[in-house]
Amino acid sequence: MEFEESGIGEECGVFGCVAAGEWPTQLEVAQVLTLGLTALQHRGQESAGMVLSNGASPPTYTAHKGMGLVSTAFPAEALQKLRYGNLGICHTRYSTTGHSELQNCQPFVVDTLHGKIAVAHNGELVNAQRLRKKVMRHGVGLSTGSDSELITQLLALTPPMEELDAPDWVARIKNLMTETPTSYSLLVMYKDVVYAVRDPYGNRPLCIGQLVPVSKLHSSEGWVVSSESCSFQSIGAKYYREVLPGEIVQISKHGVKTLSIVPRPEGDPPAFCIFEYVYFARPDSIFEGQMVYTVRQRCGRQLAIEAPTDADVVSTVPESATPAALGYAQQVIGLPYIEVLCKNRYVGRTFIQPNTRLRQLGVAKKFGALTDNFAGKRVVLVDDSIVRGNTIAPIIKLLKEAGATEVHIRVASPPIRFPCYMGINIPTKEELIANKPEFQEIARHIGADSVQYLTVEGLLSAVQQGISSMQEKDKMISSRNTSGKRVGHCTACLTGKYPIELEW
Amino acid sequence: MEFEESGIGEECGVFGCVAAGEWPTQLEVAQVLTLGLTALQHRGQESAGMVLSNGASPPTYTAHKGMGLVSTAFPAEALQKLRYGNLGICHTRYSTTGHSELQNCQPFVVDTLHGKIAVAHNGELVNAQRLRKKVMRHGVGLSTGSDSELITQLLALTPPMEELDAPDWVARIKNLMTETPTSYSLLVMYKDVVYAVRDPYGNRPLCIGQLVPVSKLHSSEGWVVSSESCSFQSIGAKYYREVLPGEIVQISKHGVKTLSIVPRPEGDPPAFCIFEYVYFARPDSIFEGQMVYTVRQRCGRQLAIEAPTDADVVSTVPESATPAALGYAQQVIGLPYIEVLCKNRYVGRTFIQPNTRLRQLGVAKKFGALTDNFAGKRVVLVDDSIVRGNTIAPIIKLLKEAGATEVHIRVASPPIRFPCYMGINIPTKEELIANKPEFQEIARHIGADSVQYLTVEGLLSAVQQGISSMQEKDKMISSRNTSGKRVGHCTACLTGKYPIELEW
Amino acid sequence: MEFEESGIGEECGVFGCVAAGEWPTQLEVAQVLTLGLTALQHRGQESAGMVLSNGASPPTYTAHKGMGLVSTAFPAEALQKLRYGNLGICHTRYSTTGHSELQNCQPFVVDTLHGKIAVAHNGELVNAQRLRKKVMRHGVGLSTGSDSELITQLLALTPPMEELDAPDWVARIKNLMTETPTSYSLLVMYKDVVYAVRDPYGNRPLCIGQLVPVSKLHSSEGWVVSSESCSFQSIGAKYYREVLPGEIVQISKHGVKTLSIVPRPEGDPPAFCIFEYVYFARPDSIFEGQMVYTVRQRCGRQLAIEAPTDADVVSTVPESATPAALGYAQQVIGLPYIEVLCKNRYVGRTFIQPNTRLRQLGVAKKFGALTDNFAGKRVVLVDDSIVRGNTIAPIIKLLKEAGATEVHIRVASPPIRFPCYMGINIPTKEELIANKPEFQEIARHIGADSVQYLTVEGLLSAVQQGISSMQEKDKMISSRNTSGKRVGHCTACLTGKYPIELEW
Amino acid sequence: MEFEESGIGEECGVFGCVAAGEWPTQLEVAQVLTLGLTALQHRGQESAGMVLSNGASPPTYTAHKGMGLVSTAFPAEALQKLRYGNLGICHTRYSTTGHSELQNCQPFVVDTLHGKIAVAHNGELVNAQRLRKKVMRHGVGLSTGSDSELITQLLALTPPMEELDAPDWVARIKNLMTETPTSYSLLVMYKDVVYAVRDPYGNRPLCIGQLVPVSKLHSSEGWVVSSESCSFQSIGAKYYREVLPGEIVQISKHGVKTLSIVPRPEGDPPAFCIFEYVYFARPDSIFEGQMVYTVRQRCGRQLAIEAPTDADVVSTVPESATPAALGYAQQVIGLPYIEVLCKNRYVGRTFIQPNTRLRQLGVAKKFGALTDNFAGKRVVLVDDSIVRGNTIAPIIKLLKEAGATEVHIRVASPPIRFPCYMGINIPTKEELIANKPEFQEIARHIGADSVQYLTVEGLLSAVQQGISSMQEKDKMISSRNTSGKRVGHCTACLTGKYPIELEW
Repeated sequence: MEFEESGIGEECGVFGCVAAGEWPTQLEVAQVLTLGLTALQHRGQESAGMVLSNGASPPTYTAHKGMGLVSTAFPAEALQKLRYGNLGICHTRYSTTGHSELQNCQPFVVDTLHGKIAVAHNGELVNAQRLRKKVMRHGVGLSTGSDSELITQLLALTPPMEELDAPDWVARIKNLMTETPTSYSLLVMYKDVVYAVRDPYGNRPLCIGQLVPVSKLHSSEGWVVSSESCSFQSIGAKYYREVLPGEIVQISKHGVKTLSIVPRPEGDPPAFCIFEYVYFARPDSIFEGQMVYTVRQRCGRQLAIEAPTDADVVSTVPESATPAALGYAQQVIGLPYIEVLCKNRYVGRTFIQPNTRLRQLGVAKKFGALTDNFAGKRVVLVDDSIVRGNTIAPIIKLLKEAGATEVHIRVASPPIRFPCYMGINIPTKEELIANKPEFQEIARHIGADSVQYLTVEGLLSAVQQGISSMQEKDKMISSRNTSGKRVGHCTACLTGKYPIELEW
Repeated sequence: MEFEESGIGEECGVFGCVAAGEWPTQLEVAQVLTLGLTALQHRGQESAGMVLSNGASPPTYTAHKGMGLVSTAFPAEALQKLRYGNLGICHTRYSTTGHSELQNCQPFVVDTLHGKIAVAHNGELVNAQRLRKKVMRHGVGLSTGSDSELITQLLALTPPMEELDAPDWVARIKNLMTETPTSYSLLVMYKDVVYAVRDPYGNRPLCIGQLVPVSKLHSSEGWVVSSESCSFQSIGAKYYREVLPGEIVQISKHGVKTLSIVPRPEGDPPAFCIFEYVYFARPDSIFEGQMVYTVRQRCGRQLAIEAPTDADVVSTVPESATPAALGYAQQVIGLPYIEVLCKNRYVGRTFIQPNTRLRQLGVAKKFGALTDNFAGKRVVLVDDSIVRGNTIAPIIKLLKEAGATEVHIRVASPPIRFPCYMGINIPTKEELIANKPEFQEIARHIGADSVQYLTVEGLLSAVQQGISSMQEKDKMISSRNTSGKRVGHCTACLTGKYPIELEW
Repeated sequence: MEFEESGIGEECGVFGCVAAGEWPTQLEVAQVLTLGLTALQHRGQESAGMVLSNGASPPTYTAHKGMGLVSTAFPAEALQKLRYGNLGICHTRYSTTGHSELQNCQPFVVDTLHGKIAVAHNGELVNAQRLRKKVMRHGVGLSTGSDSELITQLLALTPPMEELDAPDWVARIKNLMTETPTSYSLLVMYKDVVYAVRDPYGNRPLCIGQLVPVSKLHSSEGWVVSSESCSFQSIGAKYYREVLPGEIVQISKHGVKTLSIVPRPEGDPPAFCIFEYVYFARPDSIFEGQMVYTVRQRCGRQLAIEAPTDADVVSTVPESATPAALGYAQQVIGLPYIEVLCKNRYVGRTFIQPNTRLRQLGVAKKFGALTDNFAGKRVVLVDDSIVRGNTIAPIIKLLKEAGATEVHIRVASPPIRFPCYMGINIPTKEELIANKPEFQEIARHIGADSVQYLTVEGLLSAVQQGISSMQEKDKMISSRNTSGKRVGHCTACLTGKYPIELEW
Repeated sequence: MEFEESGIGEECGVFGCVAAGEWPTQLEVAQVLTLGLTALQHRGQESAGMVLSNGASPPTYTAHKGMGLVSTAFPAEALQKLRYGNLGICHTRYSTTGHSELQNCQPFVVDTLHGKIAVAHNGELVNAQRLRKKVMRHGVGLSTGSDSELITQLLALTPPMEELDAPDWVARIKNLMTETPTSYSLLVMYKDVVYAVRDPYGNRPLCIGQLVPVSKLHSSEGWVVSSESCSFQSIGAKYYREVLPGEIVQISKHGVKTLSIVPRPEGDPPAFCIFEYVYFARPDSIFEGQMVYTVRQRCGRQLAIEAPTDADVVSTVPESATPAALGYAQQVIGLPYIEVLCKNRYVGRTFIQPNTRLRQLGVAKKFGALTDNFAGKRVVLVDDSIVRGNTIAPIIKLLKEAGATEVHIRVASPPIRFPCYMGINIPTKEELIANKPEFQEIARHIGADSVQYLTVEGLLSAVQQGISSMQEKDKMISSRNTSGKRVGHCTACLTGKYPIELEW
């Protein structure tokens, strides 16, 4: 599936860093944050923001926000401005029409009676409307429509029992978590501490890494926290562990400490977003103790079992479906994996008006066929998902014109049919190909010789069989979050079964 | 005095417009706002913002903000986006180092329980710190350091006695005015109404105009409200009247209506900023029934009386001191007014590094001498004020090298010695030439043959003698704001006497 | 007359600098060039370019060009790149629709058999088409439509008699001057020398200045050459003299040296552009030994004699007409000079669509009336020229609405009726108000009570009476360019009499 | 090999289009050009330019040039300006320090006695210095250092025998080809014709495509010509044929016609650049009748034969080495192909200062390890070439830290040791790892367990064995260019044997 035309978007990526040891630190915190955030760029390209604290009392905060990719939002001058700081959090956001304004950029910083707090948020509050009303009834005006501001103002509200001169942020965060069960992975920075919080359902990912020291003199250079572990390799950090569902972790210069684990309602399983595995996350990230790439490969193998094909070669729609295609090939003895498409990575950004002739011709603008690899052959083409169905048809046409005798589409995930209210930007129900009448005859509609999808059971099995053999699971079992089942995933976009009852 | 190097800055200009008659209006409200705001550009060049409402129930708001001049902040695409609207308010801001961020741009818009309100503010709350604390103690986080956000959040706070479903904005505004006596001229937009508010001391200006109808079929095309009346000519509006100190005016499609006049403490006179007359305001604006140009001319006449000079010609430091220089010339029979300097309006924006040679030469980069006009003559050079004293010295040098036999500096205002806490950005006490040791021998220091300033009494007389003969004064007397004296001006930056006791 | 709407444009300004003494020089040549060029910004705002040479053998050239004002075209990075150089030339260009491309920017640099030459040109070759053909017939392709490239290629053509290894640039320049009589003021840089050249008719201005040394140890810091002497004050240079019509001056580190004076055809007078005096030049510039401001003032006096008015006050359309208005006032005893208009310098750049209402209202967007100065009075309003007549009508309307009982327009130059082929961008004949039918009743057309223009004779007298008393004239007489009369001006745009017969 | 850090750059890509049938054409020529050029973006990212002709007599040309990617250089407004035209040529350029100026952008357009010609050029003239001298000796000044301007001026020079009013462009092109034997693929547009020219050695690629008609009513919608055939798929064109070495093809609305084939010196074989196969070209392009991807795959197979490895898995440095890696895997029974690296495509553009810590850690910023795929295994990592050796070391470190027990580097091309003077931008001899002392122990130097390169013979065999079986070869044999051998490649960068003797 191609990113630009999928119409599916992860809302955000969050990243934080706290330098260990004596402050002022030698660690270039803004550089670590920039590189860490760049590794999360696939989770959001609209805007980026960063807030640093020197951690003093009172602290000095330095902030910068900008539109576009991290590289555009943080030009050299901005990094110059941000060069001092002992800890910081940052955020990258997905572009959805109409909300693309600088003031919606995160992290959100507000001044409170006790000083400034900064909040970066990935997810979507399922009961945001009720909470907005609550906050506004209290007399707070909200200047944006973002959940991040809402969370910040909820945290700013003094709880009745709190002492006036000593804010109990953990109590406030727990309070917030009681008000809203999902979905959020949060970073909250206050003075010299970053709180890393994951909602009780664990819907959005969040994990911790440790900066590898350059020399052996140090035990640690600092701690980082990220939406995905893929950030860690590019900054010289080691994967440490996931933040658990419902966990509030305090990261300070002294290290990482669990402050509380807020339980789910009795009987509810966790609900980690299955689409992180299928499509959003970078393949080298680790969730629940397993590499995303491996899960995708397993989906491909499972797909080969569920939907075998009589064909000569198997290939991928580059680049996201490659692990699934290789998995499919590995499962079928004698079915060689080849490449059939060459992608032009520059096309997406070209300013081409809708051109009648090319539209009539149905040209796959972004791809060139590697003709000699498959001419005269029957091709199984594995894709990771089909959302609108607009891009697959021209690809099939391209392959057939280049000489493929048959093209069989195998999709390594079930059809998407339902909206997500927990942070994933999915096209409207009407735009989803799986909800259109032509889905009944989708193969004919897109020009394929056959089309088959992975089943929900197949997907869940591919995802969950990796967990049982992993140490992460053990950690999860031993965790205090013992309510209900220990493994569970949100499949709402595929099944319509939401992890909690929705408010309207 | 040259703008760019004066270091003195008015914080802001505010402007609003409400179309009269049936809605949707034919009036291009965004165009009127843009032109009106452009006429206030001298009050702030850092950023500009605009919010339009369609006035429906519930209303749709459209907003745009941008950095730089109005023309930069509102490119064609922005005006396209803003093309529908029946009423709106806008704001332009002065650039002061460190606060130059898009998120500080006004108008500030927040969503409340009763819908969105938009606030544009000119001035500075003298007790802002106490009010911030109050708001934050209530549990509201403040995302900027701007008074505008503070005011907006104060207005959002539900008063205890208010009915939940019917916000009483007038009561809330009066409440706000009770909390903070000065300094503010405010525009508050809510649904289909703009409230225009001036603080009880009348420290910042605010006036109302009526849009002249194109044909006789209409009685009015709408109403406008502006920091200065100079806005009105450029949009085809007639000056209507000032908003009175303490007055809350409601502007709707039905017209202009006084809702309340909040009194000053017993015995306190009004405190309209005298520097608006001296320097900030555009000369074609009208305050207290008199044209600013005329006041400046009168200052020049008064200066000629207080500080006569034995000289051959009198001239101006272009362009702001010209009315005073002409006034000076009119007062002295036989002293011709001439031009001695030609200004290069492009220099200010050139990227020239501090150049040792030119600095050593002490070159007046922005000016050329009109040599033949004054060579061999004794020149009286009138300036409107001297702040840091950096620019006048090279000008004197230029004139002398070009052949002036004597150069006498006459300043049409008293020395500035004290900070302003009511909305004017004045350099630190240390930077003001009048507080430096060299002020004792300023003539020698800047190379003049003599230097003389207008007295505070002279300035007050020049300002106030125009009021007694004007109808505006009558209006003021008849107003319900009868507390204390009826005429009064804030001279704090000259005398250190602030209109209210300052909180620290 | 307002610049932005006049539609009249000077094509260009040229400026050069050669450091004196030992090289590498301590003089910051690029800074001198930037400041000098900025002082010529009124001659062209479209683009700016600069070429520096280190003067070595072979020389290293550094160049930069950019669109927009000097300040935009030369950002800090560009100046950084240009920081080394012992001599250089630069150029600023006027924006005329359709030619606004970076590749048309000057100076034009080409590589020849003998190394690079750089050329900056102000003017327009009257026989450009014939010369283009000639060059192309020789087999040279021309990549732009600019005269500057054409001149450069003409200079590159090896004359038949020249030795192959020793280019005789002076002979080549003389050759060029023989091919094309007017109009050009040229700067040609080759290795360590700048040649300053003015055409035999002296149609475009060019003058030389000497950099004042900071300390007494040096006799000179270097030499500068500029379209106008107004450049000199802002860089600490003294006016030295004009380049004479037909003169080729060599400027090197050793000083200034006349190489040749190419004569005009027998009997032809010089033809310096009279519109430089009327409108284009900065008032503090000196031409033919007299200050432009003084000439304009004299035009105002002459106008008062030719077109007296029964009125109460006299005023100016700011800013360019002020000297003429002051001259008018000085000539009429008892007629006070006042200001009637306040100009908003920000309007010109605002992105306002043609707004029906404002157009119908005929609003003078850029001006505010200084009402109290003239209400109830009869006003003589002096303008320097009227080109299209679009801006004067709304100004008159503004004054009348503000209370002027009569408005009499007096124009300090004759009507413009003819195109210029010598470097001034004048609107088409059809657009000139003086060629329209309504010119017969222009007072009624623009709403004035009367309109009167200065006569051509009056203008010539105002211009030339200053020359007779000046030393510059003596220099001109003593010059070797003794052909024909010694004083003469091009009045083609007013009279249709061109200094040479035009080719078609 | 990663593009950004390879330091190797193809100079350019050229593309042209001529609409067939009646003019004005319905074909959106500028859109076809933009898309076609975008498919050549890998050949140059510095700047892009386009010139359209309406083909009338005299023709109207429209041109646009811009810096950056095609998408940046051609914003919507530019495409709007370019929307009319019946034929056109365009060009994209590689960024090499110091020449990155807009005026070096191609196509180069000059006006000649016979009207404008436009030239787009890929390659580098081996005897450019001599030709520049020749042109300059003729009296032509050259305004850039580009070969494209030089070629244009050479074409503009009228040959002695030519009639004055009828330019014989073919004779001029042949003349040019006689003057300079290599290296160039040229597009020359004049009025209604595009001439496509390839040098006699065929050093740079050039091929022709035919636009597929939308409906059967047309025989052709037009013709396109491109540096690489990969352009054709994205615009709905079919591959037609290569332009032969030495061939001059005329493309007009009537079709494609060979005008001449200029022979090589007796005995000289063709010299098509072998690095087009190894690295530069897009894998879906076709040269000499074979797909580039297939050649690379064959290089991988040959490498497996020449340099077998005892290992568990084989993988690629994404993305350019993938065909070679798959070829290697196919050759070795039981050696599975897996992915070991995940590439972050956003890193390249991030503004990160050289960070001491990361440099000390030697982090592979752009890559994440797909740990679970290879932990505990011996990895063969195939790269397509190693230029400076800077990027491979951190990758090896990354793999080892992630658990690879051995990492063996196999390079699918021979070491690069010599500069290219024919259009490829290769780092200086000193920067090439193969010329450094550490190359003797390269495995130890980069941390690999072994390093082996493909031999020159192996590479030539992999390239040439595909030609013998292809129809293209037959065409080449039947061509009139019968001088010398029929198949031959330039391997100068590998062997130091240049196809012609170099001039100095």
